[in-house]
Amino acid sequence: MTVKIGVIMGSTSDWPTMKLACDVLEQYGIDYEKKVVSAHRTPDLMFEYAEQARQRGIQIIIAGAGGAAHLPGMVAAKTTLPVIGVPIQSRALNGMDSLLSIVQMPGGVPVATVAIGEAGAKNAGLLAAQILGINDNDIATRLDDNRNDMRNTVIESSDFLE
Amino acid sequence: MTVKIGVIMGSTSDWPTMKLACDVLEQYGIDYEKKVVSAHRTPDLMFEYAEQARQRGIQIIIAGAGGAAHLPGMVAAKTTLPVIGVPIQSRALNGMDSLLSIVQMPGGVPVATVAIGEAGAKNAGLLAAQILGINDNDIATRLDDNRNDMRNTVIESSDFLE
Amino acid sequence: MTVKIGVIMGSTSDWPTMKLACDVLEQYGIDYEKKVVSAHRTPDLMFEYAEQARQRGIQIIIAGAGGAAHLPGMVAAKTTLPVIGVPIQSRALNGMDSLLSIVQMPGGVPVATVAIGEAGAKNAGLLAAQILGINDNDIATRLDDNRNDMRNTVIESSDFLE
Amino acid sequence: MTVKIGVIMGSTSDWPTMKLACDVLEQYGIDYEKKVVSAHRTPDLMFEYAEQARQRGIQIIIAGAGGAAHLPGMVAAKTTLPVIGVPIQSRALNGMDSLLSIVQMPGGVPVATVAIGEAGAKNAGLLAAQILGINDNDIATRLDDNRNDMRNTVIESSDFLE
Amino acid sequence: MTVKIGVIMGSTSDWPTMKLACDVLEQYGIDYEKKVVSAHRTPDLMFEYAEQARQRGIQIIIAGAGGAAHLPGMVAAKTTLPVIGVPIQSRALNGMDSLLSIVQMPGGVPVATVAIGEAGAKNAGLLAAQILGINDNDIATRLDDNRNDMRNTVIESSDFLE
Amino acid sequence: MTVKIGVIMGSTSDWPTMKLACDVLEQYGIDYEKKVVSAHRTPDLMFEYAEQARQRGIQIIIAGAGGAAHLPGMVAAKTTLPVIGVPIQSRALNGMDSLLSIVQMPGGVPVATVAIGEAGAKNAGLLAAQILGINDNDIATRLDDNRNDMRNTVIESSDFLE
Amino acid sequence: MTVKIGVIMGSTSDWPTMKLACDVLEQYGIDYEKKVVSAHRTPDLMFEYAEQARQRGIQIIIAGAGGAAHLPGMVAAKTTLPVIGVPIQSRALNGMDSLLSIVQMPGGVPVATVAIGEAGAKNAGLLAAQILGINDNDIATRLDDNRNDMRNTVIESSDFLE
Amino acid sequence: MTVKIGVIMGSTSDWPTMKLACDVLEQYGIDYEKKVVSAHRTPDLMFEYAEQARQRGIQIIIAGAGGAAHLPGMVAAKTTLPVIGVPIQSRALNGMDSLLSIVQMPGGVPVATVAIGEAGAKNAGLLAAQILGINDNDIATRLDDNRNDMRNTVIESSDFLE
Repeated sequence: MTVKIGVIMGSTSDWPTMKLACDVLEQYGIDYEKKVVSAHRTPDLMFEYAEQARQRGIQIIIAGAGGAAHLPGMVAAKTTLPVIGVPIQSRALNGMDSLLSIVQMPGGVPVATVAIGEAGAKNAGLLAAQILGINDNDIATRLDDNRNDMRNTVIESSDFLE
Repeated sequence: MTVKIGVIMGSTSDWPTMKLACDVLEQYGIDYEKKVVSAHRTPDLMFEYAEQARQRGIQIIIAGAGGAAHLPGMVAAKTTLPVIGVPIQSRALNGMDSLLSIVQMPGGVPVATVAIGEAGAKNAGLLAAQILGINDNDIATRLDDNRNDMRNTVIESSDFLE
Repeated sequence: MTVKIGVIMGSTSDWPTMKLACDVLEQYGIDYEKKVVSAHRTPDLMFEYAEQARQRGIQIIIAGAGGAAHLPGMVAAKTTLPVIGVPIQSRALNGMDSLLSIVQMPGGVPVATVAIGEAGAKNAGLLAAQILGINDNDIATRLDDNRNDMRNTVIESSDFLE
Repeated sequence: MTVKIGVIMGSTSDWPTMKLACDVLEQYGIDYEKKVVSAHRTPDLMFEYAEQARQRGIQIIIAGAGGAAHLPGMVAAKTTLPVIGVPIQSRALNGMDSLLSIVQMPGGVPVATVAIGEAGAKNAGLLAAQILGINDNDIATRLDDNRNDMRNTVIESSDFLE
Repeated sequence: MTVKIGVIMGSTSDWPTMKLACDVLEQYGIDYEKKVVSAHRTPDLMFEYAEQARQRGIQIIIAGAGGAAHLPGMVAAKTTLPVIGVPIQSRALNGMDSLLSIVQMPGGVPVATVAIGEAGAKNAGLLAAQILGINDNDIATRLDDNRNDMRNTVIESSDFLE
Repeated sequence: MTVKIGVIMGSTSDWPTMKLACDVLEQYGIDYEKKVVSAHRTPDLMFEYAEQARQRGIQIIIAGAGGAAHLPGMVAAKTTLPVIGVPIQSRALNGMDSLLSIVQMPGGVPVATVAIGEAGAKNAGLLAAQILGINDNDIATRLDDNRNDMRNTVIESSDFLE
Repeated sequence: MTVKIGVIMGSTSDWPTMKLACDVLEQYGIDYEKKVVSAHRTPDLMFEYAEQARQRGIQIIIAGAGGAAHLPGMVAAKTTLPVIGVPIQSRALNGMDSLLSIVQMPGGVPVATVAIGEAGAKNAGLLAAQILGINDNDIATRLDDNRNDMRNTVIESSDFLE
Repeated sequence: MTVKIGVIMGSTSDWPTMKLACDVLEQYGIDYEKKVVSAHRTPDLMFEYAEQARQRGIQIIIAGAGGAAHLPGMVAAKTTLPVIGVPIQSRALNGMDSLLSIVQMPGGVPVATVAIGEAGAKNAGLLAAQILGINDNDIATRLDDNRNDMRNTVIESSDFLE
């Protein structure tokens, strides 16, 4: 199986958040790789990673970063693969800095931004699955099944509450 | 040619912004449709639209909305196609309300959020092209060409400045 | 006694907050039902709930949600009953995202928004009582009594402080 | 016909906004009165107004104010009628101060807060109509009709866009 | 000795903060009274308090409140004595709501606003002392002495650090 | 007549705002002086001004500044006279930076902060009058008269509206 | 004369702001070059520029960018020369996004950030001069002279106001 | 060895943050002094410190402060040496007040601002080293070595993650 998704993050401290993206990919049986690639501490490695991603068979890059979060946007500047950005919840400003640094990209270089923190990381994995699901009926079916499961969980929790 | 991208917006007042997404799709020769679908004023139509999108051949939905911007997230709740959300710049809060209403989705239902306003709309079109470009070499090549053009424009503008 | 108030929330994790709304309703002897209804995970159920509420005798809907909090606004889009929205305190942004997602509704579809978190949930219950109190002298009297109690509690606490 | 709704505002400069609430009330044939009542410049008048409202037959109070917007909350402290607060868009902070001053009420004294500015004012009128519509089938029917009109307007605008 | 300063607060939960204002007043030997007076729960008492303050010999009112903090501004609307407002640090929004509700008063009714939380409460006491110190040389001298003490404490702490 | 109030501002560009403080002082017949004193461009002059203020007979200092607005706080650090800070509406951040730079003073050195911009400047003048009015019955009476005028203006404007 | 300062900006639209940095450098006779170098549109050029800067004799880099402003931080990641970041005032969020994207750099890679917009650009030029002035007495003297001029201008403007 | 860097902070409570700046300076063998110098509690000392810094051989001043953080900007107003400002994470507003008070300096008096809290303090030390490194090849070489170490640490952590 080919690695389709590259999950990168600026620091190992982002791993507890980004793990949720990987969990989703595993749940869908989508092969992925995970790496620490820092925009500020390994800029050349980041460029190399982004530049080689498509030819290495990577189809989507999920990048998590916090604070002045440049990783998703800079990777997006070096590849035309879709890049999903996960704003990590930062210490002082709770991820508002991460969010604005990731989402406010200029025209020409998009980053598909998701929510701050764990919900966002999980959704980054799901968004990748949805993108693959455009041309992969199996994934599409499982995404719908997952939605059914979610619905049922809600209904059961409601029954329990009542 | 099949319609691949559904561009929807909450109000005709969003059109001057959302037009920039459509311009990109046209530039890439990607067939799209554009509709006004309001989460709050045509909720049933919105659900119907989202529900039928995949079977109608739509592959990606681009949804723009402002203020308490529920359109992208609710469409995303009714389809497992990728949904790209464009926060329209709102009157009082400059789009900060639109951005938070779109991006802060709970785990399970992602919206690929782009920047507030025109840069975001343009990037929504590009992100759709990038997603299609995963499996479409022609689009992928043109995306790279576009990047080259962007680079050259910058270099020329720099020469002019100097 | 007929169920007059529908208390709904996006997740069981909202219950510790929303319970305060229910406590008020019980205190006033107003019959209510409580359910988990998620805008994003049970969208059809949400629409069904909103659509049938009036004919089921529901007079007011109290809806609590956090983050990209679409539940109150989408319920409001599917009924012309008064909808009271409670912004749940979210993890990263402390409920500012919830508040803006709920309150910044476009013209045509109001949501009666209360404060973030527990104070808001309590007030949602009281606001429902006040609305019923327009035509129910017993509730109106008890609301006034409650205000007297509140006043006396403050005066006693002030005596204690002095 | 009895005056059912009291529309008050802190200053005549709020009138261009608050007029939209009155327009809705007129459209629904709901009798209302409009007054300038300032929390800070006519505090006694404000208390008197709130205190006498119920016995004067007022059923709902709509109060608009900007900046340190104390009018809705203070009126709510002096009556147990439902109070709808409209945050006026302020000069320096665009209504964020108005919104927080109105919505963040402590447990015990609710204000039903709507959006900043004109959309909020319009929705304040509609929310009042919805509250009256609980027991007034004619208003309820017209609210639904109004929703139909809104829907049709969107559909027509979409046809025009396409 | 006459009571010169009225220290009021919206709730006993504000006391741990407001105590710091009282500590300063005691340190300067300025007679004060402390009361719980709630804008929303004891509005009439609040008006009565503000209205009678000057004739009772009160010269300055220090008012602390949190959230939709209306106490300082409403007291200021009912007296022309100087009112010092202390924004209490609120739960969800960390006192930003308290600050804006207190400081953004309209032209005509000032509130002398200090910092959020404990530093603000302490400074409210000092500001009251400074105001009295305009005509009281003893207080003025002690304020200067206090500044000397502060300076020496800093210098000692710096010596210790070095 | 002795100069009692020193009105200082960081730049002549603050004058259109600060003029409103001076207008109030003139209206009350309170003698004042106005100067441009910049924390950052004339720091020594600022210190000298603050240091000599009390012995020159100044009783209250009103200081307006924008952006990283250090003037009020630094003057307050060099005198124990009451200092009233006026946050000037700044270009990029609309005075939020000015407000936080002025109001968030540490314990020990208070600044009596008023609203951002023109309302704040007017209120700075009024607050100074209120402080002088503690011991000046004539000013106190006129402050009450002014409140009556304000009340009457509101009532007349309300009559006009109705 | 050797080029000592590199002034770069993400777009020609940043030039009206960044020109103010260049004006200061010219005033001090410090040789500089100006270029459009975009983090997102010319990433390789940006890296090349940063990488070669020191060996080309550049001593300080001034980089202006707006929105998701990655240019200063990424240049800083590729050189150990001091990098001064100028947050350009952005359209929707007034430069708050630019500021947070530039200033919130992780430990290890500093960017010397100045104010949003024109004041920041001017100060970027001055900060560069101050850095050179550490070892250049002529510049140091002229910086002091410039301060004297600033002081005199304030004093004259104050005389004029009085 | 001459003291080249003055590290000052407004309070000993800032030391745990500012220590990180000193750690970097020690790591680079750059001689520094550390002092508590408070803008508000020791204003004269602050001015004296800033005024004498250059003649004492100080080349760069690092100043940390929180809340209404005036220390960096006021020191910058009294010297033309480069001043690096570190916004300390404040209690209520998480350092947003510190950041805006430090970074939003008016044209003419720059402060080189770094990130809020510990990352900022560390980077203040590094920025000072970078400035000295312009003319000190040994420091420049060690800065590059430090970058290599950072890169290797990231790569190792990535290997470990994989």
